[in-house]
Amino acid sequence: MGVQEEASSVVPVLPAKHSGIPQYLFEKATAAKKTIFKGRTKPAKQRQRVPVVPQGIERDAFIAALEELGGQLGKENVEVNDKPLVDGWYMEHPNTHDMMTILDEEEFVASAVVYPSTTEEVQSIVQWANKHKIPIFPISMGRNLGYGGAAPRVRGSVVIDLGRRMNRILDINPEDYTCLVEPGVSYYGLYEAIKERGYDHLWIDVPDLGGGSVIGNAVDRGVGYTPYGDHWACHSGLEVVLPTGEVIRTGMGALPGNNTWQTFPYGFGPFSDGIFSQSNYGIVTKMGMTLMPNPGGYEGFMYTFPKEEDLAPLIDIIRPLRISMILENVAQLRHVTQSVAARGIPRSKFYSGSGPIPMDIVHKAAAEQPVGDHSWGYYGMCYGPEHIRKHKLAIIDAEFKKIPGARKIDPKSLPEDEYYFARERVAAGIPDIHELRWVNWTPNGAHIAFSPVSPIRGTDATALNDLGRRIHDKYGIDFFPAFIVGLREMHLIVEIVFDRDDPERKKAALDCLRDLVEEAAKLGYGEYRTHLVLMDQVAGTYNWNDSALMKFNEKLKDALDPNGILAPGRCGIWPKRYRNRGWEMTRESGVKSEGNGVEP
Amino acid sequence: MGVQEEASSVVPVLPAKHSGIPQYLFEKATAAKKTIFKGRTKPAKQRQRVPVVPQGIERDAFIAALEELGGQLGKENVEVNDKPLVDGWYMEHPNTHDMMTILDEEEFVASAVVYPSTTEEVQSIVQWANKHKIPIFPISMGRNLGYGGAAPRVRGSVVIDLGRRMNRILDINPEDYTCLVEPGVSYYGLYEAIKERGYDHLWIDVPDLGGGSVIGNAVDRGVGYTPYGDHWACHSGLEVVLPTGEVIRTGMGALPGNNTWQTFPYGFGPFSDGIFSQSNYGIVTKMGMTLMPNPGGYEGFMYTFPKEEDLAPLIDIIRPLRISMILENVAQLRHVTQSVAARGIPRSKFYSGSGPIPMDIVHKAAAEQPVGDHSWGYYGMCYGPEHIRKHKLAIIDAEFKKIPGARKIDPKSLPEDEYYFARERVAAGIPDIHELRWVNWTPNGAHIAFSPVSPIRGTDATALNDLGRRIHDKYGIDFFPAFIVGLREMHLIVEIVFDRDDPERKKAALDCLRDLVEEAAKLGYGEYRTHLVLMDQVAGTYNWNDSALMKFNEKLKDALDPNGILAPGRCGIWPKRYRNRGWEMTRESGVKSEGNGVEP
Repeated sequence: MGVQEEASSVVPVLPAKHSGIPQYLFEKATAAKKTIFKGRTKPAKQRQRVPVVPQGIERDAFIAALEELGGQLGKENVEVNDKPLVDGWYMEHPNTHDMMTILDEEEFVASAVVYPSTTEEVQSIVQWANKHKIPIFPISMGRNLGYGGAAPRVRGSVVIDLGRRMNRILDINPEDYTCLVEPGVSYYGLYEAIKERGYDHLWIDVPDLGGGSVIGNAVDRGVGYTPYGDHWACHSGLEVVLPTGEVIRTGMGALPGNNTWQTFPYGFGPFSDGIFSQSNYGIVTKMGMTLMPNPGGYEGFMYTFPKEEDLAPLIDIIRPLRISMILENVAQLRHVTQSVAARGIPRSKFYSGSGPIPMDIVHKAAAEQPVGDHSWGYYGMCYGPEHIRKHKLAIIDAEFKKIPGARKIDPKSLPEDEYYFARERVAAGIPDIHELRWVNWTPNGAHIAFSPVSPIRGTDATALNDLGRRIHDKYGIDFFPAFIVGLREMHLIVEIVFDRDDPERKKAALDCLRDLVEEAAKLGYGEYRTHLVLMDQVAGTYNWNDSALMKFNEKLKDALDPNGILAPGRCGIWPKRYRNRGWEMTRESGVKSEGNGVEP
Repeated sequence: MGVQEEASSVVPVLPAKHSGIPQYLFEKATAAKKTIFKGRTKPAKQRQRVPVVPQGIERDAFIAALEELGGQLGKENVEVNDKPLVDGWYMEHPNTHDMMTILDEEEFVASAVVYPSTTEEVQSIVQWANKHKIPIFPISMGRNLGYGGAAPRVRGSVVIDLGRRMNRILDINPEDYTCLVEPGVSYYGLYEAIKERGYDHLWIDVPDLGGGSVIGNAVDRGVGYTPYGDHWACHSGLEVVLPTGEVIRTGMGALPGNNTWQTFPYGFGPFSDGIFSQSNYGIVTKMGMTLMPNPGGYEGFMYTFPKEEDLAPLIDIIRPLRISMILENVAQLRHVTQSVAARGIPRSKFYSGSGPIPMDIVHKAAAEQPVGDHSWGYYGMCYGPEHIRKHKLAIIDAEFKKIPGARKIDPKSLPEDEYYFARERVAAGIPDIHELRWVNWTPNGAHIAFSPVSPIRGTDATALNDLGRRIHDKYGIDFFPAFIVGLREMHLIVEIVFDRDDPERKKAALDCLRDLVEEAAKLGYGEYRTHLVLMDQVAGTYNWNDSALMKFNEKLKDALDPNGILAPGRCGIWPKRYRNRGWEMTRESGVKSEGNGVEP
């Protein structure tokens, strides 16, 4: 692996118009000679035989179909993917692939990207796809870092980039504490709109990275770090274009003239919103979101715990505190290795050997940090007026101090740029992107996540942590565990950071992940979300009663999408024309360049 | 209308085995010569041509099919409905019809009631129904008072009474604060099991009446009165028998060997639970429910407000307090007429004229009550240790006192049997049935509900209240409004109490309801739930974009239930073989005795 110390030349200081991230942040980062994310050094490769054509359609017919679509949407809104693949995260490049791809970038790649501006245009794209039997893959803004980015699951799909032109905040209701947004509204965008309107009583909840789409994150069932952290649970009302082109509004949205679409999620009859999350049953074009009331004060806090084995007793201490909302927000217990990496310093500064970085080196690096040496760091936030916070903080302090060597960190002792403050901002609903710095741990850094769910129990934490470390060690990968405690469950989020220009390390990362998923399932743990490339495997672990749930999912898919055009393979759900035994292995190993296995 | 003063002879003091309500409650009520609910005076009528046979099947074939089912389940578990219809709420009578029926009892009536004891038996019943094309209608315990009780939507359906034999508490997890129950577990049953096990740190949330099924209420999206009042939102994990007989487990339940079914609701892939609420897409045979942590103290409070027109400013005061959880539980603002009726005294004691009871008489009656005269009463609860409660109660007091004449009621000044304490028990998660006393307002009392949803705004409250009063006045019906504030929405719950042995008053009640639904929809308000007889009408108001949502619901129905056997018509969703234009009017007006309009 090469070492990349000086990467400021690749800091992107490009218009942030479509990035979801404000321009000033990049300017600030450049001015300070700091990088949020160093990007990659290699120039984009020349490509062969472009555009990629989806399986089952002739090249000429495909080109003609794209021209037909251009006639409907305007030529400028149908972009053929025939240029070198440039990572497009916060640049003005099209969302053609996964900028952090774990496979070759040509595997999960778009044939074209189209930019609708209205729900009606989304409908016409869907109708077009049905007419020509072309797979389409909708993205909101295409962030989804660590889970596949903007890439389609089926090579050659036409990516519908909803975010570029459908980025309106349709409503912010300061009385109901709700908003209604389109897919291109990022957390930064929503946050700034609320500030601009002077609604200091409204908070938003943000995930680790604020540049993503509010809709995209909720629909993937992502989480944030205030009491409104369960984004899916906090939404109210969807507008969905079905795979056959009809538009529905769910909940109260189905009642003409209603004023309750964003205040009461259920409506009357079947509550269908859930089947549009983590699925390929429809394209969400509008979503209502509830907003948190300003709690009247907040106070971040951090504790460190010295030993690896403090994990189990600590998790058992956290459980009742979290369920009873003394710990009010999504609780985070992060391993020291990730905290060291979160400073944005490359691993090579500390260690140049092969295999995982030895723990004594990590501890030495940690000891030199302002936070000091530790094994686990708890990042928390208390909300409300001071006397209410005091009540909760006193209970937390007494409980956490039961762990020998537990230390409360005084935030005043930390420098402004410390990772701690990024966590504090996020827990206060302020969008941030500091979190991404640990991607710089390796050159050409990228990441991919392993995210199993368990109860909040010391035994489960230990089992998952041991499993993770054992399998990471096997593949020589540094282990970055973080336990994220929802309410009654915790997500262990393990980010594998890899050099995306090093095929061997990519293979090791993917093999490691596959082992993790398989071994965790044997212990009864499943993932809450996964990368495109692992979707079949993860879905396959949810196989109770002869895979009854997947058969049910497929029955719905076939009923709603008879031509199988919408995001085939997303979350492991394949439409009928893609389901055939002979092809199963191809699906599982990633779709190959010359075919998707689709029956013509 | 006759007057029924002495009804203690019909107080049911029968074994409460299948009632969901403990025996001692009935004994207590009888001992005190008090009635919870007076029942009816008329003996059950003799019936003709029993059992009722579902449309589309010959009588002999039907009898033979029932015998075949008896062979599978045991004869004693297939009960033909050929005896007089006796109200079965807390007696040992079968759940054959709606004991509070607004139509003739023979309209929505079961042909037979069957009692499975396992999920496998539910599967075999479903397979049997598909084989013979017999409509089946699952109930948990058949309470659902005011919304259709135990009655099937289609006359002659075979009712699957899940509650009688599938009434096990499969798990109570004191670490995760969760439980797993079968359909026959009532709130009373769950409450007592938790007490028996000594789990003082676990609370349940209960709706107004504690005798119903935990599953049944959640699946109908009922609410309770603690911070865990949104029962659907608080569930985690379902086991569902599909209309074609397969069994799925949702969420983490699909992962073999998992220990997260009750702690993480979503699982991986489409979150399908919602489509099994208020629908006819499956039979829920197990459900996980999260339990509230004991908040470490609680304190009920009540405020009264003198004038009708205090409603609007009060609702505007409630909104921000509720959204910011200063008002922590489902907030209830009840009209004085209902509070007077909640004492269980018949209307005739106060007024014997026709038309709605004049408000001066209501106020005179209220003035003689311990709570004193008022127009609106707020029933609330504060949770947590004393100093935390003080903080919240002080804010509430300052805000509520902005209404001139607002009075805080000292609970110590009230007699033990006062309605206030029933509300307090319910808000503390203690099952109760006092609420039902207002059904004694009329002889042979029954009730049916109108339940529109609106934002928490004074203008909406006034619009709905005015609409309700105007239409009640038109039909000469006493108006019992209660505003139940969820979080960002309120349900106006209007209970119409009627004499179920008076066909004219029943017709007036139903006509009133139909007007209410229609007029509310014109203003943009829709119901969150409704009675069987109104399901088509209510579903019809959710008709945005040429009824796109209902077409979607029907598409799912046809995919999941191709033979259309499962609860046809529930929530307005009719399977294909019941959908034909010629029959639409029949459906709308209630299914007639000699046919369901089903295509043979």
